[in-house]
Amino acid sequence: MKLIRYGTAGKEKPGLQIDDNTGIDASSFGEDYNESFFATDGLARLEEWFSENRQTANRFDLSSVRLGPPICRPSKMICIGLNYRKHAIEAGLEIPKEPVIFLKSTSAIVGPNDNLTIPRNSQKTDYEVELVIVIGKRASYIDKENALNYVAGYMLHNDYSEREFQLERGGQWTKGKGCDTFAPLGPFLATRDELPNTENLRIWQKVNGKLMQDGHIGDMIFDVPTIVSYVSQFMTMLPGDIISTGTPHGGGIGLNPPVYIKPGDIMELGIDGLGVSRQQAVAYS
Amino acid sequence: MKLIRYGTAGKEKPGLQIDDNTGIDASSFGEDYNESFFATDGLARLEEWFSENRQTANRFDLSSVRLGPPICRPSKMICIGLNYRKHAIEAGLEIPKEPVIFLKSTSAIVGPNDNLTIPRNSQKTDYEVELVIVIGKRASYIDKENALNYVAGYMLHNDYSEREFQLERGGQWTKGKGCDTFAPLGPFLATRDELPNTENLRIWQKVNGKLMQDGHIGDMIFDVPTIVSYVSQFMTMLPGDIISTGTPHGGGIGLNPPVYIKPGDIMELGIDGLGVSRQQAVAYS
Repeated sequence: MKLIRYGTAGKEKPGLQIDDNTGIDASSFGEDYNESFFATDGLARLEEWFSENRQTANRFDLSSVRLGPPICRPSKMICIGLNYRKHAIEAGLEIPKEPVIFLKSTSAIVGPNDNLTIPRNSQKTDYEVELVIVIGKRASYIDKENALNYVAGYMLHNDYSEREFQLERGGQWTKGKGCDTFAPLGPFLATRDELPNTENLRIWQKVNGKLMQDGHIGDMIFDVPTIVSYVSQFMTMLPGDIISTGTPHGGGIGLNPPVYIKPGDIMELGIDGLGVSRQQAVAYS
Repeated sequence: MKLIRYGTAGKEKPGLQIDDNTGIDASSFGEDYNESFFATDGLARLEEWFSENRQTANRFDLSSVRLGPPICRPSKMICIGLNYRKHAIEAGLEIPKEPVIFLKSTSAIVGPNDNLTIPRNSQKTDYEVELVIVIGKRASYIDKENALNYVAGYMLHNDYSEREFQLERGGQWTKGKGCDTFAPLGPFLATRDELPNTENLRIWQKVNGKLMQDGHIGDMIFDVPTIVSYVSQFMTMLPGDIISTGTPHGGGIGLNPPVYIKPGDIMELGIDGLGVSRQQAVAYS
């Protein structure tokens, strides 16, 4: 299944994408895609609802609606840093011996095609296409061998970062990662059965039509089961929590000289099987 | 007012502390202390309910109940690092020119007197008594002069940290801050009117009866209005979000040689006007 949420920001309705152009309304399923949904085997119940209501549910053209983030605000958004070899090198940082973890403010989450707002006083806003893992059930001290059983599915994410705030303002990366609109998610959550093998998926991003990032999920230093198991050694992940798994090389900070986002720029990004999203940059007003 | 939540973990009821030994049940107020409560001027409505129901509401002895965290799980828990001069020096780190910000996993939040679970494979679990600011309304790009208007109140927090996970496992501090039970909050949320001046409040922590941390809120490098204003330049804080403001010197990492928490240890901590909490350390099982 491909889960979507659509409508006005903050008042999205749950839905499902049934082909490239068409969504159906899942309001009559009676739940939003939140922690409680995932915790109570919601995906299995939604699948049952889908098989019974697929033909009769209201249909709409996906291009006629605003898409929201495919799931409700999670309790936490965990990110893995420097998880593609070439990206670590371009950032001038050592290739990590174990995963680098940080948290991103969930108030940064927006829909996949919402505008990117460049923060006040920002000179160095940057893009990072990433694969997001959606956790399906409470996960603490999970073995790598069992880790995929805790994964509900995957989403596309543009992990926007303000490099000055992140790297030049003292301390941790937090200041440059959680600005509003810095986490467009979606267009949809693809359940795990839709992507049985993530290794060969292409991951890419264009800025103003020019291909800037182009890699494969298989290039990750730490793969999906390793990441889920590793994070679970340090904190309990709750149903609906998400992990963003790092970005391939080609971000603005890695160019010589670096090139950052300016108002009017168009970011388009995608991962095979997870759709495409598009953000236009606007100045803070 | 002093807001409390009490009962079984995950099923706490809202209440109010009316003197050192007595709580009243506020279930009939009809709301828990969550984002929506703070966003809709809940404190003013609770005050009205309190004045009308103070005499008739069910009373109970505080020592007869388990206390939960005084507010529901916030969208985020922001922490300020190295905010007391002597603590920065004892940690062997430079005194920050601007606040150091990091996020702590909200799955770490527990009640004020719940056990501290030492994580698996931990050798360096440490304590840090801190003042927590509770944000009362949506805050983005707030001036320092207006910052206190965005503060609902204050709570006591023991910001437990695993120093090896935090400092020796690569990358950011996240791994050592968000372990389960690492954020006991309370006993209560004191509304801002209860603590009009935080500067002179004493902040302290004992381990096994011995005074280890002893300072004043006024020793903070960055004060409450500065912190609220500063964080709001980088991310929107939502109603009910919390900021933990750093710890005074005396943590286990600063001792020579360092001394860390072992099973059976008792931590007692307090801030004037914010009560006292107590955690017993247990091994992970």
